[in-house]
Amino acid sequence: MRIDIITVVPDILKSPFEASILHRAIDKGLVEVHLHNLRDYTEDNYKQVDDYQYGGGAGMVMMVEPIDKCISGLKSQREYDEIIYMTPDGETLNQKIANQISLQGNIIILCGHYKGVDQRVRDHFITREISVGDFVLSGGELGAAILCDAVIRLIPGVLGNETSALTDSFQDNLLAPPIYTRPAEYKGWKVPEILTSGNFPKIEVWREEQAYARTKKLRPDLLKEE
Amino acid sequence: MRIDIITVVPDILKSPFEASILHRAIDKGLVEVHLHNLRDYTEDNYKQVDDYQYGGGAGMVMMVEPIDKCISGLKSQREYDEIIYMTPDGETLNQKIANQISLQGNIIILCGHYKGVDQRVRDHFITREISVGDFVLSGGELGAAILCDAVIRLIPGVLGNETSALTDSFQDNLLAPPIYTRPAEYKGWKVPEILTSGNFPKIEVWREEQAYARTKKLRPDLLKEE
Repeated sequence: MRIDIITVVPDILKSPFEASILHRAIDKGLVEVHLHNLRDYTEDNYKQVDDYQYGGGAGMVMMVEPIDKCISGLKSQREYDEIIYMTPDGETLNQKIANQISLQGNIIILCGHYKGVDQRVRDHFITREISVGDFVLSGGELGAAILCDAVIRLIPGVLGNETSALTDSFQDNLLAPPIYTRPAEYKGWKVPEILTSGNFPKIEVWREEQAYARTKKLRPDLLKEE
Repeated sequence: MRIDIITVVPDILKSPFEASILHRAIDKGLVEVHLHNLRDYTEDNYKQVDDYQYGGGAGMVMMVEPIDKCISGLKSQREYDEIIYMTPDGETLNQKIANQISLQGNIIILCGHYKGVDQRVRDHFITREISVGDFVLSGGELGAAILCDAVIRLIPGVLGNETSALTDSFQDNLLAPPIYTRPAEYKGWKVPEILTSGNFPKIEVWREEQAYARTKKLRPDLLKEE
């Protein structure tokens, strides 16, 4: 998989890809991530990428031209399955979308910054708009990092133990059950007896019950889906 | 505002706080962000912070003791309004929660990693559990960065122009209207005439109509809230 990220602040994205699982996935050659600084696609001396809004109002708007140049340049080199724009009014990212995208070959992720991009970019270049949630961020960069993390960890071979991703929350529309590790007692707080019983079939049943109960209490909406 | 972030991979969080708006907010003294490496709160030579799950199963669990030491140490130095755990089964972050938290004084954010934390941490130390969305990440670090970004940009003085945050998506349960900047025509794609008309009252009406239409089409659920 190859991911090209277009941004005006590539610096934000450095450390998320230099640490932990994303770094290991890149290191193992399971995914390539390329950061493109939009300012490299400007032609004026100020490397201007944004300008005032037509019609007035606070906040700057990212201009069409540098984005066109960057995206068109990438598209001339290879086919892309999806050109994604991170925006709070896109479809809300969930595990199903992460699963879908993890199966794709090459994708471009455009990060909005300031007030967002000129609408013509969305109308003519973008194939999918994704939001990480109903909140506003100072730019799409952290959203892009979240999307990459959610997607990349699903690529086979990225996680040490493949069953690990399959037992995560959401993969079966259930939240994960409570988990415990040593010590069995800490300041008088004990691990549930069943977990130290060694009776694995019973433990499985307990976990399913707990996962179901937790989902029913905290996120009953998940149980209604399909 | 003071934010203490507890993590096993502080490296992930470096660049998001060293660039852009978060960096400026810290620079201006409007917020303090302190990263705490959980391994500094271990006492064995291996700096072990995680261990196998009781009852078996893939994925490691973060142990109670180092987390207790770190949180208790911080609490002995000052009062905290909230001790937040980033977890996919927490309440889903939205703009209202970001607004609430932006009004608080001191908060701790605990990032889960691996399979998550021992349930006893959640039962005895955590006051609020927040999820950034219905997807699984390799750790809570990027979620914490998102939460900080959403919150910090709302602190007065952080954004250059305060009206900018108020006209964002979600602040009034409406998505933002389309935005445009120069040039007025690009490859034959034109800016809507109304926006270059100079008739600002009419532009306001157009924007409200567009915001409403876009919300109705893309996110009708937002219109039903309250």
